[in-house]
Amino acid sequence: MAKDKASRRPRAETPKGFRDYFGADVTERKAMLDAVAEVYHRYGFDPLETSAVETVEALGKFLPDVDRPNEGVFGWQDEDGDWLALRYDLTAPLARVAAQFRNDLPSPYRRYAMGPVWRNEKPGPGRFRQFYQCDADTVGAASVAADAEICAMLSDALEVVGIPRGDYIVRVNNRKVLNGVMEVAGVLDPSDPAKFEAERGIVLRAIDKIDRLGETGVRALLGAGRKDESGDFTKGAGLSDEQAEVVMGFMAARRDTGAATAARLRELVGASTLGCEGVQELETIAELLDAQGYGPDRIVVDPAVVRGLGYYTGPVFEAELTFEILDEKGRKRQFGSVAGGGRYDDLVKRFTGQSVPATGVSIGVDRLLAALRAKGRAGAEAQGPVVVTVMDRDRLGDYMAMVGELRRAGLRAELYLGNPKNFGNQLKYADARKSPVAVIQGSDEAARGVVVLKDLVLGAQIAAGASLEQWKSRPAQVEVPRADLVRAVQDMLS
Amino acid sequence: MAKDKASRRPRAETPKGFRDYFGADVTERKAMLDAVAEVYHRYGFDPLETSAVETVEALGKFLPDVDRPNEGVFGWQDEDGDWLALRYDLTAPLARVAAQFRNDLPSPYRRYAMGPVWRNEKPGPGRFRQFYQCDADTVGAASVAADAEICAMLSDALEVVGIPRGDYIVRVNNRKVLNGVMEVAGVLDPSDPAKFEAERGIVLRAIDKIDRLGETGVRALLGAGRKDESGDFTKGAGLSDEQAEVVMGFMAARRDTGAATAARLRELVGASTLGCEGVQELETIAELLDAQGYGPDRIVVDPAVVRGLGYYTGPVFEAELTFEILDEKGRKRQFGSVAGGGRYDDLVKRFTGQSVPATGVSIGVDRLLAALRAKGRAGAEAQGPVVVTVMDRDRLGDYMAMVGELRRAGLRAELYLGNPKNFGNQLKYADARKSPVAVIQGSDEAARGVVVLKDLVLGAQIAAGASLEQWKSRPAQVEVPRADLVRAVQDMLS
Repeated sequence: MAKDKASRRPRAETPKGFRDYFGADVTERKAMLDAVAEVYHRYGFDPLETSAVETVEALGKFLPDVDRPNEGVFGWQDEDGDWLALRYDLTAPLARVAAQFRNDLPSPYRRYAMGPVWRNEKPGPGRFRQFYQCDADTVGAASVAADAEICAMLSDALEVVGIPRGDYIVRVNNRKVLNGVMEVAGVLDPSDPAKFEAERGIVLRAIDKIDRLGETGVRALLGAGRKDESGDFTKGAGLSDEQAEVVMGFMAARRDTGAATAARLRELVGASTLGCEGVQELETIAELLDAQGYGPDRIVVDPAVVRGLGYYTGPVFEAELTFEILDEKGRKRQFGSVAGGGRYDDLVKRFTGQSVPATGVSIGVDRLLAALRAKGRAGAEAQGPVVVTVMDRDRLGDYMAMVGELRRAGLRAELYLGNPKNFGNQLKYADARKSPVAVIQGSDEAARGVVVLKDLVLGAQIAAGASLEQWKSRPAQVEVPRADLVRAVQDMLS
Repeated sequence: MAKDKASRRPRAETPKGFRDYFGADVTERKAMLDAVAEVYHRYGFDPLETSAVETVEALGKFLPDVDRPNEGVFGWQDEDGDWLALRYDLTAPLARVAAQFRNDLPSPYRRYAMGPVWRNEKPGPGRFRQFYQCDADTVGAASVAADAEICAMLSDALEVVGIPRGDYIVRVNNRKVLNGVMEVAGVLDPSDPAKFEAERGIVLRAIDKIDRLGETGVRALLGAGRKDESGDFTKGAGLSDEQAEVVMGFMAARRDTGAATAARLRELVGASTLGCEGVQELETIAELLDAQGYGPDRIVVDPAVVRGLGYYTGPVFEAELTFEILDEKGRKRQFGSVAGGGRYDDLVKRFTGQSVPATGVSIGVDRLLAALRAKGRAGAEAQGPVVVTVMDRDRLGDYMAMVGELRRAGLRAELYLGNPKNFGNQLKYADARKSPVAVIQGSDEAARGVVVLKDLVLGAQIAAGASLEQWKSRPAQVEVPRADLVRAVQDMLS
């Protein structure tokens, strides 16, 4: 059988849904995460790096969002028949670690984790199968002081990476308040928590759609149901107008201060024990934040936050960037959410049977990085290395000595390592490297003990804008004594 | 069927062969890799972070060491039937990237990569299935200036992380010289490279065993064969004494200077074109390094280096730490190799059909970190956070304000977030956290506007060594005005 030679070659392709990060992609993300880690460290959080691989058993059904398919992991069977899989988030591994090392870890245990996670989901534009997460969690602290601390830390982290105060807001709500409202609205019976689950689901989804459907649409979903523009009908929760009013009132409960919002919420959940507990927790959080100077310019109580509600058991929080950007269609819109989290108290229970309170936050690494780029706060280091060119192949040692001197002075520098025959290629290379300065020394310059420095930044400016006369009158290159190489390059770069 | 409730709980276990890294494990490695990255960056190398997942097709048979099984990867089939796997090193992904993005990348392309790799191999003591690699490679540079640069960069990197000059040596050899020696010894026929492959394999393995078998043992393997202590017989390469003499001479060819070693090698490979080319390359590398001031105190030509020879095609190098440590049995031995690499010119060819020269180095991250710990150069940050205790649960806001002030002053500080009822538990927690200072304020101190600072470092020293009288006379705690909190803690820490 004749084989086609070309067809036997493997394809050089990143697997579908995966991507590679080059140069500044890596350094910008690293700079951002390093800055965040510094804040987390100052707050007493310790780094934890778990293995990328977990047993499927340990990952379990512990998905942060019940809407996501349980199967969405990359898994395989090991030699003993155990199923292993890549972690899909950083919370499930924390649960495993908190259970496995419960006798060795400090309690409460504050930890942060940063690293890739993997999701076996259909890839799409901007949706990858491997992406970074950046989490901080406190395990073993029942006090809402832990939640307040995480909100303050999130606020600090955003400022430290370059989001100025006023351009973000951390919004805090409490799952218990919402459950209290459900109770008052008649779709939660504390003595039979499973009852009305379908109705509560409809209410939650309705609340989450307020931005898109407006008040009328949400009211329709809370009541009999809603027919959309296409004529499709969505079944409603079947609340009476009075019951619906309670829910609508909840969403509009935000007032100017945390205390005023809490007072309004207290009115709404009046009859519900759980609801009152939730309001009390929000008040405590607001007080604790206030005591540290985190006012409503940074962190607010906002009943409209309804994130991941199937998962959280108490306070929930979300950081939103409030500055405007242009979307794909050129319309102005707020940048939106970049981080969120909350309290989830059944973390370790599936392993040990013992309930352990926990609360945490996850920063959307790619979203936040995109925000920093939109604000011009990332990507400062666009400048490439100084390139020492090779005019005379027999004097590689001389050129390497130049590169060595530049590097020892702390400058980023390269020797051109390609075939030096075509000098034009060397300048093209310097250009591709975004090099600010090319160093040139032919045998003539070597004999006279000088080097030529070509200012490539100035050169590009001249080439772009200048007439021939200007070009000639401002040659973007200088000749300096060989001994002055480092100083002269430093001058040109400054 | 009655199910045992306990048996339905998942096991909280790291999968076999994997491990978790806590606190200082993470920060020490990160500090080391950050320092290395800074050197690589200064040399003009750009970071590259490929996805952890590759197609098995792209990984191919491109294993750095032919002795390793090809199957040693964690793989699975995706929804389209393609086989995917976790990368087992950072070189195979580089090959894929260099082929995939060959029109966009600068040429030559200098890149570094740091991150975990996965090996589906039997785990053992100190052998894990996930571990870090730290690589730097130059793709597209045929000149041995690229190899010399990598040796210099490796030397700089070792010094920057904390291995002082004199405690390490970078040894350089050349695969071509060894092949020249093989030619002279009669086990390589340039017109029929496949001939004598088995014999060359025996010679290579014999050379690699010189430390263990000594000259006599190696000579036996080069000749008829060798019977070991147990009586087992290993077949030899069948060289005559004269041929074996050439090989033995090669291993002993190192002289005081690179030039002298090269001269000796030139004698040995005299008749072989390939061998002469190799010697010439070693001479050039030594000259280029000399021109930058990297003398034999840092980098030497050493014919005894025979690493990964099935893979490399030209210069090979290895960094060895020369200081002594005690092994498990308390015997002194040299720390040994922490990094190695060389030239491998068929990197991209399997994808594109086009040969692309490349050279690179890989640092053994765990080995180097172990060396730094052995030298006391890592693990400086053993000190934990300042712990603010909770004496009075109603004044959480006051305590949080203290923590906030300390953090704003750049100090690492924590509020005790566990149940505050038992104060002894709070001090135990501070102890577990290696906290240097505990801050205490009961209602009495609050009324008087003071806080108590407990010096836990001094306290531990006193507890360990002092008599009861001394203990009493040097109470390791002070009372300071509340307003002086930050300054007083800073004083205590300094």
